[in-house]
Amino acid sequence: MPQSSSLNRRIVLASRPSGEPADSDFRLETGAVPEPGPGQLLLRTVYLSLDPYMRGRMSDAPSYAEPVQVGQPMVGGTVARVVASRHADYPVGEWVLSQSGWQDYAVSDGSGLLKLGSAPERPSYSLGVLGMPGFTGYMGLLDIGQPKAGETVVVAAASGAVGAVVGQLAKIHGCKAVGIAGGPDKCRYVVEELGFDACIDHRDPAMANLLAKAVPQGIDVYFENVGGAVFDAVLPLLNPRARVPVCGLISAYNATSLPDGPDRLPLLMRTILTKRIKMQGFIIFNEYAPRFGEFRAAMQELLRDGRIKYREDVVDGLENAPRGLMGLLKGENAGKRIVRVGPDE
Amino acid sequence: MPQSSSLNRRIVLASRPSGEPADSDFRLETGAVPEPGPGQLLLRTVYLSLDPYMRGRMSDAPSYAEPVQVGQPMVGGTVARVVASRHADYPVGEWVLSQSGWQDYAVSDGSGLLKLGSAPERPSYSLGVLGMPGFTGYMGLLDIGQPKAGETVVVAAASGAVGAVVGQLAKIHGCKAVGIAGGPDKCRYVVEELGFDACIDHRDPAMANLLAKAVPQGIDVYFENVGGAVFDAVLPLLNPRARVPVCGLISAYNATSLPDGPDRLPLLMRTILTKRIKMQGFIIFNEYAPRFGEFRAAMQELLRDGRIKYREDVVDGLENAPRGLMGLLKGENAGKRIVRVGPDE
Repeated sequence: MPQSSSLNRRIVLASRPSGEPADSDFRLETGAVPEPGPGQLLLRTVYLSLDPYMRGRMSDAPSYAEPVQVGQPMVGGTVARVVASRHADYPVGEWVLSQSGWQDYAVSDGSGLLKLGSAPERPSYSLGVLGMPGFTGYMGLLDIGQPKAGETVVVAAASGAVGAVVGQLAKIHGCKAVGIAGGPDKCRYVVEELGFDACIDHRDPAMANLLAKAVPQGIDVYFENVGGAVFDAVLPLLNPRARVPVCGLISAYNATSLPDGPDRLPLLMRTILTKRIKMQGFIIFNEYAPRFGEFRAAMQELLRDGRIKYREDVVDGLENAPRGLMGLLKGENAGKRIVRVGPDE
Repeated sequence: MPQSSSLNRRIVLASRPSGEPADSDFRLETGAVPEPGPGQLLLRTVYLSLDPYMRGRMSDAPSYAEPVQVGQPMVGGTVARVVASRHADYPVGEWVLSQSGWQDYAVSDGSGLLKLGSAPERPSYSLGVLGMPGFTGYMGLLDIGQPKAGETVVVAAASGAVGAVVGQLAKIHGCKAVGIAGGPDKCRYVVEELGFDACIDHRDPAMANLLAKAVPQGIDVYFENVGGAVFDAVLPLLNPRARVPVCGLISAYNATSLPDGPDRLPLLMRTILTKRIKMQGFIIFNEYAPRFGEFRAAMQELLRDGRIKYREDVVDGLENAPRGLMGLLKGENAGKRIVRVGPDE
């Protein structure tokens, strides 16, 4: 069932997953296309972003964001077009970056929208390298990580939307960039296409040793977006005064309980103390919203000059979004995963 | 055996302790008083500082500082007087802050000495509120903790040299200050003398609940100097964007292995992420040496105005330094613990 002008398809949270999400945790519903009231506009979703944080929103564990309520549409960033408007600032045909979620149509009063113009070059890029993931990599690395020329930067999920930006920016700032990714294909892409100095396959049983060999000078910035075994391998390699921006913990999103002991919390604290390490969590739009314009301008220039490369992994059709998310959480994507929900025109 | 002008007593590390240090890990030796060569001076120790970090120096586990070698004198900050000099800048009679260690006499070429003048008002204060511990509390709280008026600051070992400075400075900056200390006497001192808003006895089995009640607005700055059960009680109370300067982990200094599981390292990482917390380790003279003068001037003014109060706990005689350190690690001290090694004159 493709997108139509007469029906609003939406995918709602059917139940809260325990561990990995399953098909049965999602439900496709259809309803009437909503009508915009005075001062409102109607958006038609063209692209939906799939991101690891969505797993967290499916749980009701305490977090930095409200969970999705069971029966409500899944949340998500979208690129959409204005198809009806009673809002003077938004003519029909305008492209916007919005938070319409997993559905074909959404009504908006304009708050939280970012205008992309009437004919943006690559509108879907605003879900990736020019949007939240790119902004996360940019600010986390440059503002918290403070990389200096000659230092070593390590990032996991290196072929993903955030990791690819982190490693390429690290190179631009004169650092050695070492990625970690799942499987030889991704590792090849990270080194050959993105220009990292090295990439370690985290599925290799010798991962920790390979990483140690790849960073003979130790690690000065570890951009944390996965946690788990990768963090365990990184921890002993951190240099004095290392910086660890913490923007995600993909490996822990599906965890329902803490791993068995021993309890390494004191070990981490001792490492922070003796190596004078800075670890800092951040949620990009909470901390850095005022600097989004600065980021967009800088990143657009880097893309235009070919200094930052970017790849998308497009899932076709809203109905395939649940499987797309499940695969993303297992690392099946090759590049930034988005869903083509409807046609451009 | 008191200090004499003809003999150099020194306490050396006899063996590396496993767990808590014991008498047998120290040995008192005597030798000749050394002679200063050209460009050197001879220092006579008047006061020796006892500090928790000394436990770490007794081990050969990797740390930020070289361990004391077995058979060598224990390291330590001292306030000393020049008793012989072949160095133009240091006349006989001058008081200095030095690192002479656990002994009566030491030869120096002047490097690393801080001059205290010929008649300082309270020379021993340079081992505490005007020295390393005060500097640690001052920079850790103000530079890393960044306290804002109306916020809540929590510090453990609140009656100690560092904690007392942290809490009093927090009050001066308009914050609510909550201390944690061992036993009702220390807690009374922290509230009634130092002016904290509250103080929790960490020996009370209900410590975690009492702390939660004492910080109804949550915790914005936790100045970490103990680790262990106190940190466990603090962690769930940290507010979004909390800052955690990490300057010490007294509770872990005697630990020989990690505690039993579950492994809470992922829990700590998740808390850092979801609450966007900044944790930062620091070693005061590594990070902040250039700002020592600024600190001394500010702290001297606060002491003069009576806005910062300070108490010393004086152990009499070099031979009692080992017991003094063992007691300090158990929290037996009431105020900054120092050893009176010799007379002023």
